[in-house]
Amino acid sequence: MYVVLSGGVGAARLLTGITRAVPPDHVLAIANVGDDLNLFGLHISPDIDTILYTTAGQVSRERGWGLTGESWQAMEMLSSYQGTAWFNLGDRDLGTHLHRTQRLAEGATLATVTAELAKAWNLRFGLTPVTNDRLRTMVSTVDEGEISFQEYFVRRQHSVPVTSVRFEGADDAEPAPGVIDAIEQAERVIIAPSNPVVSIDPVLAVPGIRAAVERRRNDTIAVSPIIGGKALKGPADRLMVEMGHESSVVGIAKWYQSLASSLVIDTVDAEHASAIASLDVKPIVMPTVMSYPGVTDGLARAVCGEG
Amino acid sequence: MYVVLSGGVGAARLLTGITRAVPPDHVLAIANVGDDLNLFGLHISPDIDTILYTTAGQVSRERGWGLTGESWQAMEMLSSYQGTAWFNLGDRDLGTHLHRTQRLAEGATLATVTAELAKAWNLRFGLTPVTNDRLRTMVSTVDEGEISFQEYFVRRQHSVPVTSVRFEGADDAEPAPGVIDAIEQAERVIIAPSNPVVSIDPVLAVPGIRAAVERRRNDTIAVSPIIGGKALKGPADRLMVEMGHESSVVGIAKWYQSLASSLVIDTVDAEHASAIASLDVKPIVMPTVMSYPGVTDGLARAVCGEG
Repeated sequence: MYVVLSGGVGAARLLTGITRAVPPDHVLAIANVGDDLNLFGLHISPDIDTILYTTAGQVSRERGWGLTGESWQAMEMLSSYQGTAWFNLGDRDLGTHLHRTQRLAEGATLATVTAELAKAWNLRFGLTPVTNDRLRTMVSTVDEGEISFQEYFVRRQHSVPVTSVRFEGADDAEPAPGVIDAIEQAERVIIAPSNPVVSIDPVLAVPGIRAAVERRRNDTIAVSPIIGGKALKGPADRLMVEMGHESSVVGIAKWYQSLASSLVIDTVDAEHASAIASLDVKPIVMPTVMSYPGVTDGLARAVCGEG
Repeated sequence: MYVVLSGGVGAARLLTGITRAVPPDHVLAIANVGDDLNLFGLHISPDIDTILYTTAGQVSRERGWGLTGESWQAMEMLSSYQGTAWFNLGDRDLGTHLHRTQRLAEGATLATVTAELAKAWNLRFGLTPVTNDRLRTMVSTVDEGEISFQEYFVRRQHSVPVTSVRFEGADDAEPAPGVIDAIEQAERVIIAPSNPVVSIDPVLAVPGIRAAVERRRNDTIAVSPIIGGKALKGPADRLMVEMGHESSVVGIAKWYQSLASSLVIDTVDAEHASAIASLDVKPIVMPTVMSYPGVTDGLARAVCGEG
């Protein structure tokens, strides 16, 4: 089994490669739910949906997010009502949220619904939320106090200074069925190039997960989401600094030091390899920008030890 | 003030005429909420939305229901998940349900949200739910026991035998603000040609409403939804018979006898005028099929006493 601790876009792209590099039924993605939100009465799981849509090959190439063939009629109507319109919901995407919300109301767990959605999209790898329980990433900002992750990420376009992050509900959350076992029995545990602060940390915050990964440190490999000091997308670089860390591959190596014995860094960061090695983390230097052809598959083979 | 006790389609068409016959700001539609449902976590108010869309001139002419320019992307996605798909929700229509659900979650009453929606659609007459409280029309069927109104009406296409109807929550419901006052002070109370059993009765079931209308019997006029023994649309004819009444304008006159001193019946039912008069109900015979041009306006003027 290859277990992938996953946020959204970066994880989804890597999973596309991993499921080509190894048999997909040997892959389990454990997804962040700290980004989940309830809006308009709907349960929205952005990271899970990004993984579903991306690995199914259904993400819009023009926008880089959301579904192909999407339309925005519901949002336009909502705007005419002067309604909450800061979170973009396409009409096709709404079908996913409607179904998830209905199934949860019927008593299905988030893991069950996620498995059903994955089946409907013909995914051949396992996809599970890290927990079926409510866990919400909350962000403390200088100007507005504590706000939800999506209010920070989408509404404020992650442009406001952050003083701290906490994971509401994490202490009382239980790992979803099979998650701890999968980590314990995995051939490899892979930490996707997702935001360490707000995508991977909420996964690790579920009691038992961090300890389980630490016990598997020798077989855990992380991919740095920081390339040349910057995040490809999103606020990982700013948040690393705001949390008192360095926005660099060395900062990432320190952040994951107790969890991962290897760290994949981009060739542009080759100069930092020895600093990483001195942290008892094995640096693996290779192209990691998955928007270039071939890079995704090479990276996937490397993290699976198939290269 | 002209107060109109309203169900869906028939009431909406009559309101279109009434707001041309008299100053629209002198009109208040008191709408049925017994058809409301919670589906996919969304609060859906079918009768209120039919009134909104119809009086705004936005109902699809081809389908006869729902919005013009509608698309069905969310429903198609939902179907691909094998999800609940018996209740049709267009993408534009979803915008209304999303906004209503969000506003209710924020603590707004249904009456407040309805007024906001009416304003957004530029309606110039008053539109209010009969109550802000939860009231649900429940239908007892021979084969399946008790089911919700929409399960009966849409899912079973009102084709199953009914033994009784009850209005869950009615005993504890309070009239929405202004509703009793409006009935008491109205120049006319108009009972729209809606289904007496499942559209008008749930309005009357809210404590205080039936008694208030009965006190205004002299100024209350009903329009028969039964024409030549049949309902133009929907199961009013079957339900009248199943409730032990006659499916005829005489049956309607008896049903509303304590509430309305006048009843508009279609010219095809002219022969029943004397039977109605003998019930101490004044028959008004005229064309009532509002799909013909001119009929709506003539009917509207008649019920407002402007003819």
